[in-house]
Amino acid sequence: MPSSRLNKLTVAITMGDPAGIGPEVVLKALKDKEIQALANFIVVGNFRVLEKTAQLCKIRLQKHIALLDLGDLSKLVFGRGIPAYGRLSLECIKEGFRLIKTAKADALITAPVNKHTITRAGYFFQGHTEYLAKASRVSDFAMMLTGGALRVVLVTRHIALKKVAGTLSSQKIYQTIRLTAEGLRKCFGVLHPRIAVCGLNPHSGDEGVMGDEETRIIRPAIARAKRFAKIVGPLAADSLFYSARQGEFDAVVAMYHDQGLIPLKMLALHQGVNLTLGLPFVRTSPDHGTAYDIAGKNRANPGSMIEAIKLAVKIASRIKGKASRPCS
Amino acid sequence: MPSSRLNKLTVAITMGDPAGIGPEVVLKALKDKEIQALANFIVVGNFRVLEKTAQLCKIRLQKHIALLDLGDLSKLVFGRGIPAYGRLSLECIKEGFRLIKTAKADALITAPVNKHTITRAGYFFQGHTEYLAKASRVSDFAMMLTGGALRVVLVTRHIALKKVAGTLSSQKIYQTIRLTAEGLRKCFGVLHPRIAVCGLNPHSGDEGVMGDEETRIIRPAIARAKRFAKIVGPLAADSLFYSARQGEFDAVVAMYHDQGLIPLKMLALHQGVNLTLGLPFVRTSPDHGTAYDIAGKNRANPGSMIEAIKLAVKIASRIKGKASRPCS
Repeated sequence: MPSSRLNKLTVAITMGDPAGIGPEVVLKALKDKEIQALANFIVVGNFRVLEKTAQLCKIRLQKHIALLDLGDLSKLVFGRGIPAYGRLSLECIKEGFRLIKTAKADALITAPVNKHTITRAGYFFQGHTEYLAKASRVSDFAMMLTGGALRVVLVTRHIALKKVAGTLSSQKIYQTIRLTAEGLRKCFGVLHPRIAVCGLNPHSGDEGVMGDEETRIIRPAIARAKRFAKIVGPLAADSLFYSARQGEFDAVVAMYHDQGLIPLKMLALHQGVNLTLGLPFVRTSPDHGTAYDIAGKNRANPGSMIEAIKLAVKIASRIKGKASRPCS
Repeated sequence: MPSSRLNKLTVAITMGDPAGIGPEVVLKALKDKEIQALANFIVVGNFRVLEKTAQLCKIRLQKHIALLDLGDLSKLVFGRGIPAYGRLSLECIKEGFRLIKTAKADALITAPVNKHTITRAGYFFQGHTEYLAKASRVSDFAMMLTGGALRVVLVTRHIALKKVAGTLSSQKIYQTIRLTAEGLRKCFGVLHPRIAVCGLNPHSGDEGVMGDEETRIIRPAIARAKRFAKIVGPLAADSLFYSARQGEFDAVVAMYHDQGLIPLKMLALHQGVNLTLGLPFVRTSPDHGTAYDIAGKNRANPGSMIEAIKLAVKIASRIKGKASRPCS
């Protein structure tokens, strides 16, 4: 039905690393009729990779879903990290971004890639989030993870734990809170966001006995951010997530990766979605990696990819002012 | 019935900081008939504090529960941190330990104290765990937290996050795994423990890209510990706790406080119990603090104290070889 097709949003999905579970979760998610009805999809990938994945997983390729066929891959070995796969992964991201930039797609969903193989293919690549921010000439951005009853936004992301304390600054924390409040309003329609901010140290420092970052760095950021949202914190992270789970806050700002990801994945391992805040377009991804150990074995769970699609469509619909399809 | 009294274990409970919620959760836990039936109890505290707390919380003092009355407190102000309260708190711990040492009690349960007021009273005090280890001349000990489906043991405890990486050593991690395996066997009757060990960094370092502690420090400890238990790791902490919650492991060894306490408290905020591993006697405590903000207001939840009593009785019964009362 061409008319319903015209009314729908268009969503681009990159297939991710050919050797990982990306192609599999993309195909598994898109075979779901309910998902198919949500939008027009453009899969950005490689035909032979998708064909081989479809065979292995016994999925029929959906003829009506558009494929933007990239690269030339003579042979595919699942679970193998080679630069050729890294190069192809990055081509897909570039092409996905081009679709957004030329207004051919309303949202971008990215399947997992392998940073090592992309780097070994000769590119500087820190991750999707950083790549897309740079391509969009955006310097303030943040990673929000949603899953179960939680929304978590990270101040620092993929850095060694020993570097966390030295990397934090009031400005970074303030920007993260600001992006969180904006994201809650714009993407989730939360008009009066309630945001909890984690302390860095055990018991949030216990009045300075275990670390002073709470007083020196986090409190000043919260004081500034209170102008535009209801912020509480810094709170001891261990009891905070209990309250967050009960729905006391619309989002939690965590100081480092595991502080936010441990509670999120514990509640929602197969429903976790990564949403980039601060970009001029909607971008989500499943919150898992390439999972080489189970790639090509028809064992990957498409739950997070399905949730990533639903969330991207929901937010893009809200932003475009179109009627949102029921998607949750 | 004197005969049943003789057959029962005797458990000493320190009331904790008079100005905190300790006395309240002790009294609330002990008014429960099911708890009363588990053991003979000796409350180590101060009569006037307990009397005032009982009045405020409308609890009748249980005449048949022994009180070891210490200190001389003319006035009690809830939520106030003064050295006199610190001194009394420490006297209770000393006396509780004396009951254990003289075999007048089979297990010790400690209500929360305020480290600051104890320190300001002129004592060197890092916490119950460290104090009791030193008093027992034990140098290898560890903190196990239990709650919900999880048991977590910490390699580092109450230190600033920035100090965690520098404080870790293979020896410390090895000792913690060893104590965990011993504790599972001795205290929980798990003959063939399955223990998961967390990585320190996001994604467990992602093959050295974000920190090298996994390779340099954690792996060698695990290799040594494999002699005496089934150990897996280092695993990315965010997905590990999902598996742990499903019952895949008997315990998780976490590198730092929040890594272990965030998942535990999220699942079991009012059932968390702290068990000290490595002591020559059984010691548990509720895993919360003095909570000055709600002290004296009859708002404290005795859930963790109740679980701490149940666990102490269960373990002490197991160790003594006496028939364990149903207590879970």
